[in-house]
Amino acid sequence: MSSNSFGKLFTVTTFGESHGPAIGCVIDGCPPGLPIAQEEFRADLDRRATGKSRHTSQRREADEVEILSGVYEGKTTGTPIALLIRNTDQRSKDYGDIAQTFRPGHADYTYWQKYGIRDPRGGGRSSARETTMRVAAAVIAKKWLAERYGVHVRGYLAQIGEVTPGSFDWSVVEQNPFFWPDAHEVSTLESYMDALRKSGDSVGARVNVVADGVPPGWGEPIYGKLDGDLASALMSINAVKGVEIGDGFGVVGQHGSQHRDEMSMDGFASNHAGGILGGISTGQAVVASIALKPTSSILIPGHTVNQAGEPVDVVTKGRHDPCVGIRATPIAEAMVALVLMDHALRHRAQCGDVGEVAPRIP
Amino acid sequence: MSSNSFGKLFTVTTFGESHGPAIGCVIDGCPPGLPIAQEEFRADLDRRATGKSRHTSQRREADEVEILSGVYEGKTTGTPIALLIRNTDQRSKDYGDIAQTFRPGHADYTYWQKYGIRDPRGGGRSSARETTMRVAAAVIAKKWLAERYGVHVRGYLAQIGEVTPGSFDWSVVEQNPFFWPDAHEVSTLESYMDALRKSGDSVGARVNVVADGVPPGWGEPIYGKLDGDLASALMSINAVKGVEIGDGFGVVGQHGSQHRDEMSMDGFASNHAGGILGGISTGQAVVASIALKPTSSILIPGHTVNQAGEPVDVVTKGRHDPCVGIRATPIAEAMVALVLMDHALRHRAQCGDVGEVAPRIP
Amino acid sequence: MSSNSFGKLFTVTTFGESHGPAIGCVIDGCPPGLPIAQEEFRADLDRRATGKSRHTSQRREADEVEILSGVYEGKTTGTPIALLIRNTDQRSKDYGDIAQTFRPGHADYTYWQKYGIRDPRGGGRSSARETTMRVAAAVIAKKWLAERYGVHVRGYLAQIGEVTPGSFDWSVVEQNPFFWPDAHEVSTLESYMDALRKSGDSVGARVNVVADGVPPGWGEPIYGKLDGDLASALMSINAVKGVEIGDGFGVVGQHGSQHRDEMSMDGFASNHAGGILGGISTGQAVVASIALKPTSSILIPGHTVNQAGEPVDVVTKGRHDPCVGIRATPIAEAMVALVLMDHALRHRAQCGDVGEVAPRIP
Amino acid sequence: MSSNSFGKLFTVTTFGESHGPAIGCVIDGCPPGLPIAQEEFRADLDRRATGKSRHTSQRREADEVEILSGVYEGKTTGTPIALLIRNTDQRSKDYGDIAQTFRPGHADYTYWQKYGIRDPRGGGRSSARETTMRVAAAVIAKKWLAERYGVHVRGYLAQIGEVTPGSFDWSVVEQNPFFWPDAHEVSTLESYMDALRKSGDSVGARVNVVADGVPPGWGEPIYGKLDGDLASALMSINAVKGVEIGDGFGVVGQHGSQHRDEMSMDGFASNHAGGILGGISTGQAVVASIALKPTSSILIPGHTVNQAGEPVDVVTKGRHDPCVGIRATPIAEAMVALVLMDHALRHRAQCGDVGEVAPRIP
Repeated sequence: MSSNSFGKLFTVTTFGESHGPAIGCVIDGCPPGLPIAQEEFRADLDRRATGKSRHTSQRREADEVEILSGVYEGKTTGTPIALLIRNTDQRSKDYGDIAQTFRPGHADYTYWQKYGIRDPRGGGRSSARETTMRVAAAVIAKKWLAERYGVHVRGYLAQIGEVTPGSFDWSVVEQNPFFWPDAHEVSTLESYMDALRKSGDSVGARVNVVADGVPPGWGEPIYGKLDGDLASALMSINAVKGVEIGDGFGVVGQHGSQHRDEMSMDGFASNHAGGILGGISTGQAVVASIALKPTSSILIPGHTVNQAGEPVDVVTKGRHDPCVGIRATPIAEAMVALVLMDHALRHRAQCGDVGEVAPRIP
Repeated sequence: MSSNSFGKLFTVTTFGESHGPAIGCVIDGCPPGLPIAQEEFRADLDRRATGKSRHTSQRREADEVEILSGVYEGKTTGTPIALLIRNTDQRSKDYGDIAQTFRPGHADYTYWQKYGIRDPRGGGRSSARETTMRVAAAVIAKKWLAERYGVHVRGYLAQIGEVTPGSFDWSVVEQNPFFWPDAHEVSTLESYMDALRKSGDSVGARVNVVADGVPPGWGEPIYGKLDGDLASALMSINAVKGVEIGDGFGVVGQHGSQHRDEMSMDGFASNHAGGILGGISTGQAVVASIALKPTSSILIPGHTVNQAGEPVDVVTKGRHDPCVGIRATPIAEAMVALVLMDHALRHRAQCGDVGEVAPRIP
Repeated sequence: MSSNSFGKLFTVTTFGESHGPAIGCVIDGCPPGLPIAQEEFRADLDRRATGKSRHTSQRREADEVEILSGVYEGKTTGTPIALLIRNTDQRSKDYGDIAQTFRPGHADYTYWQKYGIRDPRGGGRSSARETTMRVAAAVIAKKWLAERYGVHVRGYLAQIGEVTPGSFDWSVVEQNPFFWPDAHEVSTLESYMDALRKSGDSVGARVNVVADGVPPGWGEPIYGKLDGDLASALMSINAVKGVEIGDGFGVVGQHGSQHRDEMSMDGFASNHAGGILGGISTGQAVVASIALKPTSSILIPGHTVNQAGEPVDVVTKGRHDPCVGIRATPIAEAMVALVLMDHALRHRAQCGDVGEVAPRIP
Repeated sequence: MSSNSFGKLFTVTTFGESHGPAIGCVIDGCPPGLPIAQEEFRADLDRRATGKSRHTSQRREADEVEILSGVYEGKTTGTPIALLIRNTDQRSKDYGDIAQTFRPGHADYTYWQKYGIRDPRGGGRSSARETTMRVAAAVIAKKWLAERYGVHVRGYLAQIGEVTPGSFDWSVVEQNPFFWPDAHEVSTLESYMDALRKSGDSVGARVNVVADGVPPGWGEPIYGKLDGDLASALMSINAVKGVEIGDGFGVVGQHGSQHRDEMSMDGFASNHAGGILGGISTGQAVVASIALKPTSSILIPGHTVNQAGEPVDVVTKGRHDPCVGIRATPIAEAMVALVLMDHALRHRAQCGDVGEVAPRIP
């Protein structure tokens, strides 16, 4: 499998640089017969899009998805589905002055060291622009998972800097630009973000994702565990530095008598495990959490070197997010959906379709 | 790639159940000409072995590695290297009484739901016994990485329950049964563990792994990122519920001006990134941390159901660790080494061998 | 690896239907720093293009390759290279009358049985139109192989129906529309093809491909053998029903004393093996041969059934080749080049770059 | 996928050298619940075994298969199945005198050039001994295919040297040591082989394999075509130099009106295609044919060089077959079965289990 492809059986290959002609993806292995239309990509791409509010980057991108193949008369045919988005907003001049500089905290230096060449326009391949195609591909995965198995994947912002929600309500998450589960704190967050923007700095965040309806039995031990694949998928999102399943790092301080989720035919007594045991789904909600670093694209000058090895100071003047974690919410959902889709297919390859192995704990 | 195989180019396929006839692995893709002898597996297997001290499981296994193929006159030939360990301690009666019961916090229920059948002897395939072969395979990877690139991977226990080290000294880590970096606290830990064992309970832990000497340029964006592959590798270890790279979840509360690692020709000013930017190594130490849950094999009865759907209480009487995190240290090292080995080969496939791309920050 | 991807390390993923909006490919794993320009795709695409002469299909396709990613300032960057060709000639009405019919010898029935749905426009995904992208991708592989290792891949038509060349001269192969190695027979072939076209029938062909300059050592036993991968690559070309390496089926009647290629420090005495022993290149020319069936798209009515299960007669009125083998020549070259490129990278991953292991037979 | 692994979802990884301690394999992805016992491997291993008659190699190998994992109480559990055979007959002295010599027609020189090291004992990894494990793994595949889908794979020897069968009867194929379909010619073949053995030479052969009961729809275009995968699988067998599907190279001289298999609701009128169109099975018998070269291990001296680059003459005194094609029959069956098994799983991953898409041609 090539390194720009994700998934073993539902395989998404992405391509494209932030400020090149286009970005796109090829989705291979999609079951045939799934209805899909161009307009169905709109909602999730808008959720991810920069420019949605003043609290995320001010770039405006049309992000019109064109379906190039794999769909005939509105249905998937089983052949590869290629999606294409032209880059319409390519203000590459923004980046001209830093083309020879290695920005601290960015991938400039590492790409240079790996390849001996790099595309400096907007971060090139390392830009979060690439995640647009993950979200697009996941629209198909989400739809199939929902229609066939009743699986639903959703996320929310669980922390910005030191701020955590005081209450939790799924119904408000999609009603504010922060994917924040506490409606009363939205104005506070707006003030917080405005102050942060003025300071020229950025802040980290935590995003939680929950997948409901996942049947027991998905995941392949030992090296294709559901949690292992989720960890890889989520860590591959730009700026992510940590991944947790269920109680995550909270387990370090727990005792076994406290952590284990007891079972009865009425259900599990708790979900410390995050819906996965031995790398296989339990039938409970699959719960994952990620930590996103504060973006290094800030207005506060930083020390670094350029390609000539000279010390320079760098300021990133581009249109960037003071908190990249906000728009990471739909991206994290997308990665969870892609992993689940892949495992749904892998499960039925080896074990047949989801059956009814008794006893099944509700 | 099958789900019991790990690695794209340095591929390790493991097999075997905890109490079956044997466990083993096949290592494919090893460069030819590497000297390797049977006795070289001893040290790391002993470090991982149960029964090393009274603080880990009391099972005694000979764990004699037999090299079945791929080595001729003491050197690797480039063909697959098969390693085999016979299971000599198969007290399967220990587990007879719980063969029909789904132990809470274990993989019993999920294997049952996935496959409709399970091997209950000692946890079967889901037992940590499988990790023995990861450690064995990593002996080869560690040796090659050290000889060819000067890469060294080592780990230590960073937390047990609520206890964290008061000081840090690499030189004491291998001098105590806890891989603990503070020599003064070892006796305290021993008392802590004795009390824990008496209580019949278990506790979680945190293990840190550091890889020194990794050259810049290893890792393949976007879906073969070095941190993404580390996350998958580490999350695949039994009981792991969280993975961090560098500052990990600490980044949530950080500001960009604080997190980004500034550069000069004298070196990086800090290593918040954990040696990876954009999924590619920076040349700094690669730093990862994992959270291990407290084992669910405890003496305190727990509520669950059996295969007939009846409510039962279960106690695990087997020989198990009150803190599985302790012996996870060499396993975590092994997984990091396997990932690095794989990426060393992947890097030279696409980009040729490690070169000297200027400017190189020391 | 997904089934629309080819190659393990130099991975080409193609997409697109014959009469859909576009066809394209994503090339992942290309070494960085290779100069490549849009116009370099022209020559081989023209060689493959339908409409080149009256002896191949009369369709006219612009086949303008657009480079969407992976190239910056004229050089590959190491990131995925996406190539796109818009389908400009989409006379889908041509096929309207057979949309419900399973044409004998075509993939209509099998796609229908597999997917329960099919794109009937011009054969959809099963059209040889897809091979355009293989030829495009191979332009990059051919260039890298030539520049780095001096490898050159070329092919010729070795038989049409019962006609075989009376003499052999590489220099004339590219001078006639048949890739025929005997200049004196070209006018005879033209008459032959004209008569065939008038009869409304088609004929089979044999294409040979020779790769010069392949160093010894490429190929990975046991299941990544160079000849095994060539067999798969060549059999995947539309209409191919047989693949030979070296003497191919001629070996059935040979004796061991006759077949084995004796060696001296002056070279091999013969090349019955076709440059491959034990799945690894010998350093001699790699020689492969393929059999292409006569196209089933002919004007002579054939019996079949339609989707309603009714018996019908079918005639294919489209613009098709009476001998698809002719334009298969550059396609076969392309597949050989892609296999060699992949193995060049695989070899240096495990064994380092091509070395000078003594003794080397010239 | 590593190069000693075969299959995408039913993955067989083999290891071991001809005269090393053992050979073995790991089968990953087998559906759970399949009954399998150690004695079921006996029949096919005997069919493949050397020493079966005086017409094949006189080596005697016990070839006792030990099941190391993946089977519990006589049924597969879904975890990897490891099979092991100890090499009991290791007369490595036989090969001592040629350890420094590159035998013509063997893989000695190419392994040396690739790896810079080789295991000369009995051909090491390149020995046909490795195919024992393919046959063993295929026992499981054959059983599952037969039980679940009614698929049966069988082969026969279709040509030795210039000799072809005068008549065809499946029922006699297993009744003679040549897998020959014409009972009347067996004594003639025995005389032929005796004369050949006396002459110290060897001869080539052709083996045909037929798979009955394959449902329509298996195979994945474009690069996972059923015929493409068969080609790779069959070409990977030692000594194979050519692969045909259906009419194979016979298609070169055919016309389209002759080749295409017309259809009616009573069935296909012919099977020139060998049961595959567009890379997908048609529901007819899948028919493949392979050419095997005469072994180069003969008593007639041949010119070559040794590792010092000196010219030497070589005679292979070992216990080898004058016609390796004979025992290739069960090996070829095995490879076809492994490909079909893999595609059965791949098909149900993407498309669900074999359905009843109308109209189905019987």
